[in-house]
Amino acid sequence: MPTPAAAVAIDVGGTKVAVGLVTADGRIVDQAVRPTPATDIEALTDLIIALARELCVRHDLGPLPVGVGAAGTVDLDGVVRYAPNIRWRDYPLRARLAAALQAPVTVENDASAAGWGEYRAGAGLTALRSMVMLTIGTGVGGGLVLEDRLVRGEQGMSAEFGHIVLSEGGPPCNCGNRGDLEALASGTAIGRMAAEAVAGGALGADSLLHGTDLSGRAVTAAAQAGDAAAARILGQAGFWLGVGIASLVNALDPERVVVGGGAVEAGDLLLAPARDAAQARIMGRGHRRVPPIVPAVLGPDAGLVGAGLLALGRAAPALQAAPSGLSSGGDRP
Amino acid sequence: MPTPAAAVAIDVGGTKVAVGLVTADGRIVDQAVRPTPATDIEALTDLIIALARELCVRHDLGPLPVGVGAAGTVDLDGVVRYAPNIRWRDYPLRARLAAALQAPVTVENDASAAGWGEYRAGAGLTALRSMVMLTIGTGVGGGLVLEDRLVRGEQGMSAEFGHIVLSEGGPPCNCGNRGDLEALASGTAIGRMAAEAVAGGALGADSLLHGTDLSGRAVTAAAQAGDAAAARILGQAGFWLGVGIASLVNALDPERVVVGGGAVEAGDLLLAPARDAAQARIMGRGHRRVPPIVPAVLGPDAGLVGAGLLALGRAAPALQAAPSGLSSGGDRP
Repeated sequence: MPTPAAAVAIDVGGTKVAVGLVTADGRIVDQAVRPTPATDIEALTDLIIALARELCVRHDLGPLPVGVGAAGTVDLDGVVRYAPNIRWRDYPLRARLAAALQAPVTVENDASAAGWGEYRAGAGLTALRSMVMLTIGTGVGGGLVLEDRLVRGEQGMSAEFGHIVLSEGGPPCNCGNRGDLEALASGTAIGRMAAEAVAGGALGADSLLHGTDLSGRAVTAAAQAGDAAAARILGQAGFWLGVGIASLVNALDPERVVVGGGAVEAGDLLLAPARDAAQARIMGRGHRRVPPIVPAVLGPDAGLVGAGLLALGRAAPALQAAPSGLSSGGDRP
Repeated sequence: MPTPAAAVAIDVGGTKVAVGLVTADGRIVDQAVRPTPATDIEALTDLIIALARELCVRHDLGPLPVGVGAAGTVDLDGVVRYAPNIRWRDYPLRARLAAALQAPVTVENDASAAGWGEYRAGAGLTALRSMVMLTIGTGVGGGLVLEDRLVRGEQGMSAEFGHIVLSEGGPPCNCGNRGDLEALASGTAIGRMAAEAVAGGALGADSLLHGTDLSGRAVTAAAQAGDAAAARILGQAGFWLGVGIASLVNALDPERVVVGGGAVEAGDLLLAPARDAAQARIMGRGHRRVPPIVPAVLGPDAGLVGAGLLALGRAAPALQAAPSGLSSGGDRP
């Protein structure tokens, strides 16, 4: 039986749910986006099921493998252990979707799915075997590929790179740590530094930061419009991003480091100081190649692409072992 | 052709060279130790070759697979790129030994070899699939096993856990970083803290730290004899060890964390505060199992055991592919 040529991919975030058909070469053929009913667990599951079914009906397809990237910690059985922005707690998402859709379902953390998407079809496309991906948005997510495999961890909770500590005792993180990468280099951290700059009265009267919403995006826009204080803030976040990257390179020796998420919009305002800080801290730098630190290329599609490609990769052996093809799906995982 | 039942294992440190015969179940049958001729590269290589040959002659064995753990960064071709305490720089150790011994040779960083030894025959023996090992001696080394495989990294330089940054701008490390794990929790760091305590005049007149050599071992002995200042210093090193472990658990989600090296002598004086600091900083701790943090069990033999088991594991396919057995070795790698 041939491997299916496409998978249903689903990216579940705190604000929106995206569903698309992803081909084996990593293209998204069709995509629908809906607001996340974040407070009603069953409404969210029903929405995912309805969107997946609609997609298959619209393309006149039988049940396809399904891949989900979810904004939370997901264990190896596809149970969402904890999702900070959705009310999933120890929720058996994979089992629920598999029973409803009668298809093989795989569930992964959204940042790990995005990492796999970039690795297979984006910034990692050119014959890599290992890659560290950092997704810098409101928080910091991570994806890790070693020896051509997505590293899931013993409980499916690896690559939480936002929570490596770089400045113990520093600014607090939502996770309870102080001075971790998320507390120092996320969109939230950039916003905090901007608010501190405004409150500290150190800005010139003409600073663009006065009167903006002080989100990471607003600080980036101000820096790109020439505001020096905004550029300094991005430089500081970039510095910490580089310290974190150096720690990860020293621990993992990857071939490439990819930075994705909304922060990519800041370009070299963030990445140039990150490269400088990382290069100065990478072990044995005179006796090794320092891995390139490059921006992600798939943008917000990375999670969907990765979830689809993971579903295709993981479903293939299960489907080939099944005696009578996809339509006999039953409760096969 | 059967897999050989033993390998020649060699552990090359800055002060001594150990050579032993390691069986497939991880026992050391015979062992010889010599001082390292650290300043004469060729004398060191000749010593390794002579010790390996002696061992084979003494046991009436033909050429066996050879595994080396070397105190330095070793690339995937077995070239020692840099060794801080030995004058190897881009030195093709694997090729030199393979040519002289006419046997398959594998070379690995010594801490990674020790990690593999503990994983296969020591603290990780009970059906693990992943493990982080930290070797706390004068410096801090690391070994990483994920999905039952030793992670070597893209250039053979992974698991340099001593050089993840925990307190950017903190005490300097030999590598040039400031506030990395080695600068905060190694034997060297313990000695520095002890010297600061003595110089700061904050010790009681009866403190055992007065008049000792202030090495990590001396501080441990003083703490075990009841000296409060020495115990506080070990507690501080343990705290930083725990911060580093939390960062590694958040990044890698291993099943177990093993702490080896001379620091194991300090026992819970070091490990209890490390566990406390780690537990408070591990991501999602209410929704996951926190991996046990346990002492290594093989002591100084871990590197030898690991080098031997790596040689057996890597040599088996090469030997089985060879047409006419071990004695025809030739220049087979």
